[in-house]
Amino acid sequence: MAQKVIVVGGVALGPKAACRCMRLAPDTEVTLFDENTLISYGGCGIPYFVGGDIANVKDLCSTPYHTLRDPEFFRDMKGFTVKTMTRVTAIDRQAKTVTARNLATGEEQTYPYDKLVLATGATPRKPDVPGADLGNVFTLTKLEAADAIRKQMEGSSVKSAVVVGGGFIGLEAAVAMADMWGCEVSVVEMMDQVLPGVLSKTLSMMAAHDLRSHNVSVYTSEKVVRMEGEGGKVTRVVTDKREIEAQLVIYSTGFLPNGELAKNAGLEVTSRGAIVVNEHMQTSDPDIYAGGDCCSIKNLITGKQGYLPLGSMANRQGRVIGTNLAGGNATFPGYVGTWAVKLFDKSFCGVGLTPEMARREGFDAVGVSVEQLDKAHFYPEKSMMSLELVAEKGTRRVLGMQGCCSDPDSLKARIDAVAGVLQYARPTVDDISNLEVSYAPPFAAAMDVVNAVANATDNVLCGRMKVITPEEFLELWKNRDNNNYFFIDARPQKAGDAVQAEHPDWHALSLEAIQTRWNEVPGDRPVAIICNTGLRGYDALLVLARHGITDVVQSMGGMQAVLKIGGSI
Amino acid sequence: MAQKVIVVGGVALGPKAACRCMRLAPDTEVTLFDENTLISYGGCGIPYFVGGDIANVKDLCSTPYHTLRDPEFFRDMKGFTVKTMTRVTAIDRQAKTVTARNLATGEEQTYPYDKLVLATGATPRKPDVPGADLGNVFTLTKLEAADAIRKQMEGSSVKSAVVVGGGFIGLEAAVAMADMWGCEVSVVEMMDQVLPGVLSKTLSMMAAHDLRSHNVSVYTSEKVVRMEGEGGKVTRVVTDKREIEAQLVIYSTGFLPNGELAKNAGLEVTSRGAIVVNEHMQTSDPDIYAGGDCCSIKNLITGKQGYLPLGSMANRQGRVIGTNLAGGNATFPGYVGTWAVKLFDKSFCGVGLTPEMARREGFDAVGVSVEQLDKAHFYPEKSMMSLELVAEKGTRRVLGMQGCCSDPDSLKARIDAVAGVLQYARPTVDDISNLEVSYAPPFAAAMDVVNAVANATDNVLCGRMKVITPEEFLELWKNRDNNNYFFIDARPQKAGDAVQAEHPDWHALSLEAIQTRWNEVPGDRPVAIICNTGLRGYDALLVLARHGITDVVQSMGGMQAVLKIGGSI
Repeated sequence: MAQKVIVVGGVALGPKAACRCMRLAPDTEVTLFDENTLISYGGCGIPYFVGGDIANVKDLCSTPYHTLRDPEFFRDMKGFTVKTMTRVTAIDRQAKTVTARNLATGEEQTYPYDKLVLATGATPRKPDVPGADLGNVFTLTKLEAADAIRKQMEGSSVKSAVVVGGGFIGLEAAVAMADMWGCEVSVVEMMDQVLPGVLSKTLSMMAAHDLRSHNVSVYTSEKVVRMEGEGGKVTRVVTDKREIEAQLVIYSTGFLPNGELAKNAGLEVTSRGAIVVNEHMQTSDPDIYAGGDCCSIKNLITGKQGYLPLGSMANRQGRVIGTNLAGGNATFPGYVGTWAVKLFDKSFCGVGLTPEMARREGFDAVGVSVEQLDKAHFYPEKSMMSLELVAEKGTRRVLGMQGCCSDPDSLKARIDAVAGVLQYARPTVDDISNLEVSYAPPFAAAMDVVNAVANATDNVLCGRMKVITPEEFLELWKNRDNNNYFFIDARPQKAGDAVQAEHPDWHALSLEAIQTRWNEVPGDRPVAIICNTGLRGYDALLVLARHGITDVVQSMGGMQAVLKIGGSI
Repeated sequence: MAQKVIVVGGVALGPKAACRCMRLAPDTEVTLFDENTLISYGGCGIPYFVGGDIANVKDLCSTPYHTLRDPEFFRDMKGFTVKTMTRVTAIDRQAKTVTARNLATGEEQTYPYDKLVLATGATPRKPDVPGADLGNVFTLTKLEAADAIRKQMEGSSVKSAVVVGGGFIGLEAAVAMADMWGCEVSVVEMMDQVLPGVLSKTLSMMAAHDLRSHNVSVYTSEKVVRMEGEGGKVTRVVTDKREIEAQLVIYSTGFLPNGELAKNAGLEVTSRGAIVVNEHMQTSDPDIYAGGDCCSIKNLITGKQGYLPLGSMANRQGRVIGTNLAGGNATFPGYVGTWAVKLFDKSFCGVGLTPEMARREGFDAVGVSVEQLDKAHFYPEKSMMSLELVAEKGTRRVLGMQGCCSDPDSLKARIDAVAGVLQYARPTVDDISNLEVSYAPPFAAAMDVVNAVANATDNVLCGRMKVITPEEFLELWKNRDNNNYFFIDARPQKAGDAVQAEHPDWHALSLEAIQTRWNEVPGDRPVAIICNTGLRGYDALLVLARHGITDVVQSMGGMQAVLKIGGSI
């Protein structure tokens, strides 16, 4: 008799697992349930639909050949049954059945399964402040909401909007509304930085500066306390620090995994409610698989259970589940946490832990960053890239890497090169110094930035270079009347001279000059060096060290990094 | 007493090792010898100088801050001595001295060393045919030759040029001359494809098609037999198949490592003359290091000694040597062979072995290729990427990956992601199916092309899909009167119908149609399926399999690949 497979959930993982299973074992009877009408859509594309990059909401539900992925498509092309507007309400593991309710008719029915797949996804956290139920307050995961937001934007009744939450989707939505619709957008983030948990403080300041340079207001360490409205529609967001006019609000403050169905059936879930699975993507019941945004999976860096709701993870896991449904033996080992987000002029990518996260996880970690061109410096087309490596002192183990660049693909190349190694090996800083990346002048520098950041980290770990972040440098400079620091600008002499002309406390001592003029540097004061990107500063620091001046820090990424975080001297 | 280090060779590895050593151990007395006047130049930039992308030859000898890297720079900024126009002629390992001759004065002198670094590079193979000594016959590794070629181009006396050798530098030179100077360029390659050894036949045909589409003639399996000239200058290249007018000829037929100095000193060299080094980059004499283009290093895929003369390798090795000169313990484990080259509209990148190379190395290997968009299909900016994975049957071990795309950075991202894993792990096809690459719609598809090519390879290795290359498909179609194949076009019906209208042997059976019309496919003839990229063809093949029709092959990469190799129906 044909094996019966039931799949609960029709976005990303569910259809992927069903399709893969049908390809390998076409005799299987697969039934997929989803409580919505639209299924198998590219949820990650929603901000691009809101922003007008994608013309029609149906484009997000279509194959690359513009075939709509509706129940008929899956029946005719993939050979399985899809029941939309149908909610699975309970699992009877003893009887191996699920109960499903048709949301249109209210009718309930019981369906038997041999294997069950839970692809129930996640639900955006709802605003829990007064005014949350006002009109034009949205979350951004359902196509229906996307359509409503886009219509509001096109109607141009929305002059200003507030995004609550400075994570990936929040920032993508902010960019979409400001870029395409010229809307005045404010981002309110509770934590002390945007993209908390995935970017270091410095890189997050680069993201905030990119937003602010394009007229998006960014308010961090700030909490929404209520929303006010008129005629049932939101008109104002009140935070603990200010009031912001807004005709539209997008709440994007994270997701809660939809684990209730699993939990009620007695399957193991984490304290956050995410379903626990093994390497084969099986739940604590081996006949029940789960994957995607409803699941907890192993973080390969920390070794702990973690959570990373991403469409790409869901698709890869879906294939593994599909293979196993068909009798195969595929595994999914866990995740290292790669991600990417494009803002206005700048893109950000990362993998693994930030310095702050690493310390929170108990690692004695450093984050070392460089600014370097992504191509040979003599090649005409190139971008300045910020790259930060996170490593554990002592073991020299690499824990993560994050970066910022105006060229999204170029940045992706560096992050993904390290991500693969993190996934399948346990690299040290030296392994990344030796990392072999493809090279020719239109692609990379001979000493690529990914190698350079590892080299810089090596120098820090070996104690050859003491570093501070650009924001720490600016802080030292701002408080120069109190801290007695001696500031050296090691850039070519003209650049330093221009600053020194305005600020007598600034000492233009180019790398060329310092070779002979090192004795102008006082031996009894701490020294802070800055140059353009960090290269010349390091050499200047070594010159001073040779002459016994060792209480010296240098500002990572030099003036390039200072400018990128929106700072100035 | 200060340690004495002598470095022989002033490009890439030599200066890098010297600088690194001086940073770590500033008391070292380093002397670097080079027989030329210009040193520390970016040799890989020469084709871009010839092509006009780089204005001045000095840009290739300068730091990112436009400081000329001349002997004074290294003395003042880096603290070591450079002697140009000085050839090291012998090493006395017993006495620990080298003999060097000043090429200007002829004077010879002996210099003592504690540690010696050989960075002697490689010499381009000289043409060995009659006419090789004619004027305007160049090789392309010295800046002096680059300058001469550029001047000839600017003088516009060169209407047509011949490049002998279709490797990286040859093709870059061909592009440079045709693109910038509108010169009629022909490439003559002895092997049966351009980029032999680094691209599969199919991908090499894509490279050749890109060249031909931009008026560069490509002649493969063709040998230069002589060059003819007038007034001492070349005017014609004669091959075994034709005569080509040419006022300029660039010979780019590979390199010979400069290992004589080492060999004469009794150090171990390979049969090709490359210096053998261990993981610490030490030669068979532990006080003598060597690296860069004069060395043989271990190929981590084959486990054998190999040779990969690339500036990026030299720079990374130089740092390792510099660390060790200063008493450190750095290692360089070997190489996996990543490379990149940009032609006209298309870039090519790769790592590891091609299918052909893998078979020559004794692996039972397959190469499986896909065509897929590099970004989410609904995202407006995207490029179609060709990606080929090479894997060993049985073990499913990944041996290499190569690709072609109009976006150089995007292609680099996929190749480098796999390169890192190849360097530090021993991945299987399944590991690449699960490879975690950074994702958001402006960066990748949810099921990225790098995962997709592994999935396709899995399907081939499991026998679920039989594949042929686009050139094999075209061959079958050309010989259709003899081979009895039944040709199916699984693209959307309209596309197939248009071809069928012209060719009755072409059967437009879209994936939609074949679900019900599968019985139009004869069960007693071999079947060849093509679609647009390969996705629909695979599903069509599975439909036929379900109905017992299994003598079916599908054309990898579909019509996209056919068009990219310059084919048509």
